[in-house]
Amino acid sequence: MNLILLFEDDFTAPDKVSISGRRVEHILKVHRAKIGDILTVGLLNSKIGTGKILAIDIQQIEMEVTLDYDPPKPIPLTLVVALPRPKMLKRILQSVASLGIKKIYLINSWRVEKAFWSSPLLEPERLKDELILGLEQAKDTILPQIHLKRLFKPFVTEELSILTKGSSNNKPIALAAHPKAALPCPQNINQSAILAMGPEGGFIDIEIETLEQAGFSTVNLGRRILRLETAVPFIVSKLF
Amino acid sequence: MNLILLFEDDFTAPDKVSISGRRVEHILKVHRAKIGDILTVGLLNSKIGTGKILAIDIQQIEMEVTLDYDPPKPIPLTLVVALPRPKMLKRILQSVASLGIKKIYLINSWRVEKAFWSSPLLEPERLKDELILGLEQAKDTILPQIHLKRLFKPFVTEELSILTKGSSNNKPIALAAHPKAALPCPQNINQSAILAMGPEGGFIDIEIETLEQAGFSTVNLGRRILRLETAVPFIVSKLF
Repeated sequence: MNLILLFEDDFTAPDKVSISGRRVEHILKVHRAKIGDILTVGLLNSKIGTGKILAIDIQQIEMEVTLDYDPPKPIPLTLVVALPRPKMLKRILQSVASLGIKKIYLINSWRVEKAFWSSPLLEPERLKDELILGLEQAKDTILPQIHLKRLFKPFVTEELSILTKGSSNNKPIALAAHPKAALPCPQNINQSAILAMGPEGGFIDIEIETLEQAGFSTVNLGRRILRLETAVPFIVSKLF
Repeated sequence: MNLILLFEDDFTAPDKVSISGRRVEHILKVHRAKIGDILTVGLLNSKIGTGKILAIDIQQIEMEVTLDYDPPKPIPLTLVVALPRPKMLKRILQSVASLGIKKIYLINSWRVEKAFWSSPLLEPERLKDELILGLEQAKDTILPQIHLKRLFKPFVTEELSILTKGSSNNKPIALAAHPKAALPCPQNINQSAILAMGPEGGFIDIEIETLEQAGFSTVNLGRRILRLETAVPFIVSKLF
C-alpha cells in the first residue's frame, strides 16, 4: 500500500478521517506507523495528499488529511479480456488497476471454462476490492469500471463495433493480440486504444473473424506466447 | 504448455522419446491428445520441432520427434532482483523465463525479509521447475541461469561493477529502477542491459548509492509504483 485509499464514509470532519479494518492492519504491520507520522493518502475518485496520524488504536486510526494534487493520468486504453481463471483474475485486476487502465470488459470466449463465470470473485464488491489493491499499489485513486459480458458475439458485433468507430475527433486504434497475426504490436501510438486479449490457448478462428469484422486488427507479440499477466503490462508499455 | 519440453533422458532412440509425469498429465488433460496427434516439442537447451504421438497410457506417452528449428532469440538482459516473497518468486521466475531473460541474480537488500532466504523454493531443482514452466509457456528451450547472492555490498561492488564495465566491444547499459529517479526508463536501447529491481518498498538510499558507484543509472517508470511482476514485463517491453 503505497497510498492509503480513503472513502467518503471515512470522514468525520472536512479534514479528518477515521479508518479501520485492513488499512489499519497494514499501517500498523507494514508501515509500523506511530502518532505524528505522515502517510500518502488519496480519496477514491478524487485527489491525493497526505494524512498525519493523530490517534492510533488496534482498530482505528485517525488522521488529519490534506488532499491537494491530482492522481496520475489514466492510460487511454479499454481492455477487453477473456475471463481468466479466478486466481489469475485477482492478479490481473490488481495489475490492470496499477497500470492506469480505467475501462475493462471481461468477456466470454470459446476457451473460457464455464465454471469461471460462477466464481464469487465476480461479485461487484469483490472485483472492487482487487482494483483498490492495484490503486493503492500505484498511488492512484480513480476506480476502473468493469463490465461483464457473457455473450461473445452480441457483445462484439453490437457493442464493441460501436466503440471501435469512436467519435469524429477520437477514433481509437483497435487491436486483438493473436499469436498467428502477421503484424507486430505497434509502439507509442499516441492515441486511444481498445485491446482484446484471448484466453489461455487464444481466441478461436471464428472469434478472431468476428473481432476483425468489428474493426479490430490482429497483432502479435513476437514468437513467445506470454501469459495474460505478463502480456498485459508488456503490451501497455509498447503502446503508451 | 505451448511446447512440451524434452530432456536427454527422455530419448529411447535418436528420434523417439518416452515421457511421464506432469507432462503426460497435461497432454491428456489439457491437450486431450490421442495417438497420431502432433505436438510442439523442444529439447532443453537445444532445438524445437514436433512430436507425433505413437502410444499413450496413463503414465507414459511415446512420441516420434523431429527437432529442426531454433528457439526464439534470448533478450540480452541480465536481471538483478531483490529476492521477492516465495509466492511472488514463483510467478516472477515463470514470467522472466517466458520473456526470454537468460541470466538472473536474486540478491539480498535491506527490505528483503530474512525468512525468504529459507524458502525451499530456492533449491536448484525447484527454481528449475518454475523456469521450465515459463519456457513451456513461451515455446523456448534455453534454461535461464539463476545465481543467489545473499550479501548485497560485496556482490554489487565486486561482481556487478565488473559486469557493468562489459567488454571492449559490448558495454551494457546498467539501470536500476527507482521511483525517485529523475530520468525515465529509456526505450528501444538496441544494446545489452543489466537491470536492477528493488524489493517491495524499494532499495534504500545507501543501496542506490552503491549501485550508482557500480555503474548503474537510476530510472523511473512514471508516477505509478508497479509490483515486480508487473514492472518486469513493462520494462523489458520498453527496453527491447
